[in-house]
Amino acid sequence: MDLSVDLDRIKHDILSLAEIGRNEQDRGIYRMAFTDADMEGKRWLSERIKDADLECSFDGAVNVSGTLPGRSAGPRILVGSHIDTVPCAGALDGTLGVVTGLECLRCMRQAGITPPRTIELIAFSDEEGRFGGMFGSQSVCGEINPQSLAQMADLGGVTLQDELRRHGYDPMGSLDAARDPESIAAYLELHIEQGPVLDRTKKSIGVVDEITGLFTWSVCLRGEANHAGTTPMDMRNDAFMGLADFAHEVPRVLEENGSDRSRATIGKAQILPGATNTVPGLVEFSLDVRDTSEAVLDELASAFRKALSAIARRRHLMFEFEQKSYLQPVACDQTIVSRLMKQAERLQLEHVKMPSGAAHDAQIMGKMVPVGMIFVPSKNGQSHSPAEWTAWSDIEAGANLMLQTLLNM
Amino acid sequence: MDLSVDLDRIKHDILSLAEIGRNEQDRGIYRMAFTDADMEGKRWLSERIKDADLECSFDGAVNVSGTLPGRSAGPRILVGSHIDTVPCAGALDGTLGVVTGLECLRCMRQAGITPPRTIELIAFSDEEGRFGGMFGSQSVCGEINPQSLAQMADLGGVTLQDELRRHGYDPMGSLDAARDPESIAAYLELHIEQGPVLDRTKKSIGVVDEITGLFTWSVCLRGEANHAGTTPMDMRNDAFMGLADFAHEVPRVLEENGSDRSRATIGKAQILPGATNTVPGLVEFSLDVRDTSEAVLDELASAFRKALSAIARRRHLMFEFEQKSYLQPVACDQTIVSRLMKQAERLQLEHVKMPSGAAHDAQIMGKMVPVGMIFVPSKNGQSHSPAEWTAWSDIEAGANLMLQTLLNM
Repeated sequence: MDLSVDLDRIKHDILSLAEIGRNEQDRGIYRMAFTDADMEGKRWLSERIKDADLECSFDGAVNVSGTLPGRSAGPRILVGSHIDTVPCAGALDGTLGVVTGLECLRCMRQAGITPPRTIELIAFSDEEGRFGGMFGSQSVCGEINPQSLAQMADLGGVTLQDELRRHGYDPMGSLDAARDPESIAAYLELHIEQGPVLDRTKKSIGVVDEITGLFTWSVCLRGEANHAGTTPMDMRNDAFMGLADFAHEVPRVLEENGSDRSRATIGKAQILPGATNTVPGLVEFSLDVRDTSEAVLDELASAFRKALSAIARRRHLMFEFEQKSYLQPVACDQTIVSRLMKQAERLQLEHVKMPSGAAHDAQIMGKMVPVGMIFVPSKNGQSHSPAEWTAWSDIEAGANLMLQTLLNM
Repeated sequence: MDLSVDLDRIKHDILSLAEIGRNEQDRGIYRMAFTDADMEGKRWLSERIKDADLECSFDGAVNVSGTLPGRSAGPRILVGSHIDTVPCAGALDGTLGVVTGLECLRCMRQAGITPPRTIELIAFSDEEGRFGGMFGSQSVCGEINPQSLAQMADLGGVTLQDELRRHGYDPMGSLDAARDPESIAAYLELHIEQGPVLDRTKKSIGVVDEITGLFTWSVCLRGEANHAGTTPMDMRNDAFMGLADFAHEVPRVLEENGSDRSRATIGKAQILPGATNTVPGLVEFSLDVRDTSEAVLDELASAFRKALSAIARRRHLMFEFEQKSYLQPVACDQTIVSRLMKQAERLQLEHVKMPSGAAHDAQIMGKMVPVGMIFVPSKNGQSHSPAEWTAWSDIEAGANLMLQTLLNM
């Protein structure tokens, strides 16, 4: 019979860690990176690692590791995610990947299994972005330098360096966290989907084949603010109507230039002067565009630019836009994807191959080493809130899929 | 030869009054109702009235009047506007109607003319709305009662009653300002257009035939806030896209149900939660709809309601809306309109019949007595800002049209 995870231990770990940083009023968890609660979470994790008879270590970026030595000294397999949270978070998110990863290693250790390769559980620091996001995985990938380190600060102006010092760490130590790519065979991450697809289609498992890239724009359309009563419709340069036109082009641009994995969202808009009786003279809005193909992203950018320019001409508006961020899409390793699919089939789990629409540590790691990701369903697609949840049975399914995959790599 | 106004006196009055409440930094005028600057303006006006050898009086609403007695004791003609301003105003707006009205009476007095009817210049209090707007004309029309009086307060919470007391007036006195409709033959008002029509079509004079009514709505569309990356396009309930759909229906609804005098404006919108990477779950926006016909306003309201409802169904959004204000359209008196047109022709002034898209004291007075309005051009359609201006030649044309019309009524 297959080795399998102990769901009770997973439950216990999730619920225990959920008490650290919990706010009793809103039931949200506040374990933002390098807060006292986050550090308490890291200590809790290190105790659990030691309890499982695994080697515990912290690197210079305060990533927490638990290692199960393998038979060979060759490149190791990393498995994990992160335990820091957004403000008012739920109990799962990255925590689920860390806790299930720990359970996989604990199972193997208890069963007396020495895997062919060393397997290392890793909980990355500041995935959620108090200081920008993906700090732990970027450190491991050598993407941090003294300048970027010095510039990292949270919204309140607290610098990462000061927080690290406050907890007794030398900030420059995070530069030592960089690993030799040759030392890592693969990185595997289990995470909640954070979207509605698995929940709506009633699948337990998503095998991620690609992690979407994205660009975000800040767009400004400038017309003329005029009196809503005295300005005839044909004498207006209504900036808001320009935005409405643009919003209406979004489906067409996606249909003509996108894939079924494309997303485009206008999530933020400011209309000025913003009075009921005044024709808007200025709108500033955000555009968030995602796809798993860099070529498709390029085509979408070009089509959105053309649409904006045509609308501005037609409505006599000035427009300008600025790219605020760009994240390259990352493909998961095809061999790992196949292994995950094969194991999911063997375990008779309802599964589907799908993209990840959100960014994860695997997106950073994937630029350096082969990566694979397992998604489990998010109830109603909800995440980053106390309403975030996944059925225990789906969590068990995901953890067993991870365990079998690790055993067979 | 026709009696005509003295432009130099008009210039002098406008520029003198513009110094009262002027802010030297932004060059704007701050003569909001019942501020010290507004009261100083009222005193300045009363001095000018007395200098012109006219009877000066203040009523209980602190409306300032200057009277030129006529030959008969019959109903009088009122001419005027207001001298209070919005914050950071220009020099004209209502002030122009008061100053040109004063000049008309001054001309007649100097020429030794005793008009058939008594003519009264009136400067109404708080047209601009520090305490709600149209306070002076509403008082004259008997639309104020002790309750409404007690509730009037500015945005800072200062009550009208306290401001009146501070300046030595008994608030209840404003109830005494109500006049017998039989005592007023007509109300005439000259005002800047506050729109671009006369300026763009190069006319000196607009003869207002109708003052538009309006309704404003506050509309709420509720969908679901979701992650912009993980939520496929077809699994979204994007509240902002509902607003964009609605904005796109505006031209169709106006074409199908409106007149060439219809206007519809979405001037204000709040998108929540308002994050680049989040599908909007809620939008709240304003709709301002105007027309000169009550029946057209009703049809527009019904069409906009249907459009909203259809969009909400199609996009799986909840919607609700609330009517925030309603102002009935008012027709100018057709006899007065004809007189104004005839005089404009006789004086060879480039003129056009047009609606007023903005509300004025004439809209209040028009519910009680016959009214007529003269518009002069607003450069670039600008008003309520230090950039507000009208060519002196157009001001002279408007003032002479008022003078000839008063002489012939």
